[in-house]
Amino acid sequence: MDSIAATPLPEGAKARRVYLALRDQIADGRLGDGDSLPGEQQLAQSFGVSRVTVRRALQALVEAGLVVRRAGSGTRVSAAVQSRPMAMDFTTLMPQLVEMGQSTAARLLSFAYGEAPDFIARAMRLPAGEEVQIATRVRSADGTPFSHLTTYVPAGIAQNYSENDLATTPLFKLLERSGVRIDAAHQSVSATLAGPDVAEALNVAVGSALLSLKRVVRDETGAGVEYLSGLYRPDMFRLEMPLARVGTGPARHWEPAIGRTEEDAS
Amino acid sequence: MDSIAATPLPEGAKARRVYLALRDQIADGRLGDGDSLPGEQQLAQSFGVSRVTVRRALQALVEAGLVVRRAGSGTRVSAAVQSRPMAMDFTTLMPQLVEMGQSTAARLLSFAYGEAPDFIARAMRLPAGEEVQIATRVRSADGTPFSHLTTYVPAGIAQNYSENDLATTPLFKLLERSGVRIDAAHQSVSATLAGPDVAEALNVAVGSALLSLKRVVRDETGAGVEYLSGLYRPDMFRLEMPLARVGTGPARHWEPAIGRTEEDAS
Repeated sequence: MDSIAATPLPEGAKARRVYLALRDQIADGRLGDGDSLPGEQQLAQSFGVSRVTVRRALQALVEAGLVVRRAGSGTRVSAAVQSRPMAMDFTTLMPQLVEMGQSTAARLLSFAYGEAPDFIARAMRLPAGEEVQIATRVRSADGTPFSHLTTYVPAGIAQNYSENDLATTPLFKLLERSGVRIDAAHQSVSATLAGPDVAEALNVAVGSALLSLKRVVRDETGAGVEYLSGLYRPDMFRLEMPLARVGTGPARHWEPAIGRTEEDAS
Repeated sequence: MDSIAATPLPEGAKARRVYLALRDQIADGRLGDGDSLPGEQQLAQSFGVSRVTVRRALQALVEAGLVVRRAGSGTRVSAAVQSRPMAMDFTTLMPQLVEMGQSTAARLLSFAYGEAPDFIARAMRLPAGEEVQIATRVRSADGTPFSHLTTYVPAGIAQNYSENDLATTPLFKLLERSGVRIDAAHQSVSATLAGPDVAEALNVAVGSALLSLKRVVRDETGAGVEYLSGLYRPDMFRLEMPLARVGTGPARHWEPAIGRTEEDAS
């Protein structure tokens, strides 16, 4: 999958900021194919930067193939690469590959045992100072990285699988293979900015927007068996939630629609 | 609700970038209360900026009350303001107010009728050029803006309610009151950067990370009756998803756990 994020970024923090904001608007359809961008002067005013900076950002959009500029007719969107992000499947909590033939691979960035940080211990309901395995993996689809996953697993459970297992098998399967009886999970979804380390691992600019997902997985006793902190590139990954309106009268309400398919799930 | 995002930002795009990245790490617990930040030299290297820039970012964090600096002992997190974002309730798709007594209000930023943009018409399965009502609202909790909502509704439905209705009543209720029989919805969740207009409306810096939600609502015939493009401040709003592991053997899978409560849903 070609990615619009892999093209070179403009020089300078301000030009980069303008470039990233416009790229996001094109990527998520707020600026559609053929739409005109505001003029240089207007962009300069609204971003509070110079026209030179705007021109540098627009030139980078041209080089990325996202806009075309013509003397007299201004700048228009020409989104040749329509990104089609993969979706997360509710029934497996694993990224679902939208197109057949797309393969993902995980790369283990770090692997260590140590004390659980306070906020992890609290979320997992572990005693303070409990030893956990901390692993960071980057997952790629057809060579393009899309997720940066840091997982925390109590050492007593993690000793049942190896570093190599972790690079090749979903953690979730390793836990069940280790005899853990998974009962519940809680996901909290938000957004954050890419810091230097994560930006490098995901091949995006520092300061790019990332989808952020925290997941606590519990066994039947309520004990935390996994804490996941996942960061996802929004051009590569979305969370899809089909919902159905059920019940009658005042009891009518929304419920997640499991097993329903949506034709236009993008 | 006091917000850590409302404090003044440091001068300069690079210092702002460092400030926002560190603020995000503190807000979501990656840097916990009492944790030491890396030294100035290390931060300068990892962000690719000068030490002067790092010092300006750290000074802004001090002024925001997020860190304390002491000669000899470096910089430590002192997150006095623990943000407790509100959650979205699955059964109403409305923000759930975490604390009693917190009130939300909507402000109508714009209201117009016009042709549906192409990507909206496609998503709603409307004929190209169909007339829609386009409204933009900002919702605040106790005076702090948290969501920027742009909605598209076919003109034939929208004529059943007024501009004033829209500022005071959830759109969803207006649709049902207009005789629309809502059947299904599809939400797609991602992340994006705040552009100048949205940043101003939400009182955040340009280039802040926002949670982005697209929702298509359909009636029983499959026709689109509402398209929502929502942008949410991650320090004020999260999407919470409790999940249960159900079934046995190879059929064991995850399902959203409706009605379950989680003690530590933050």
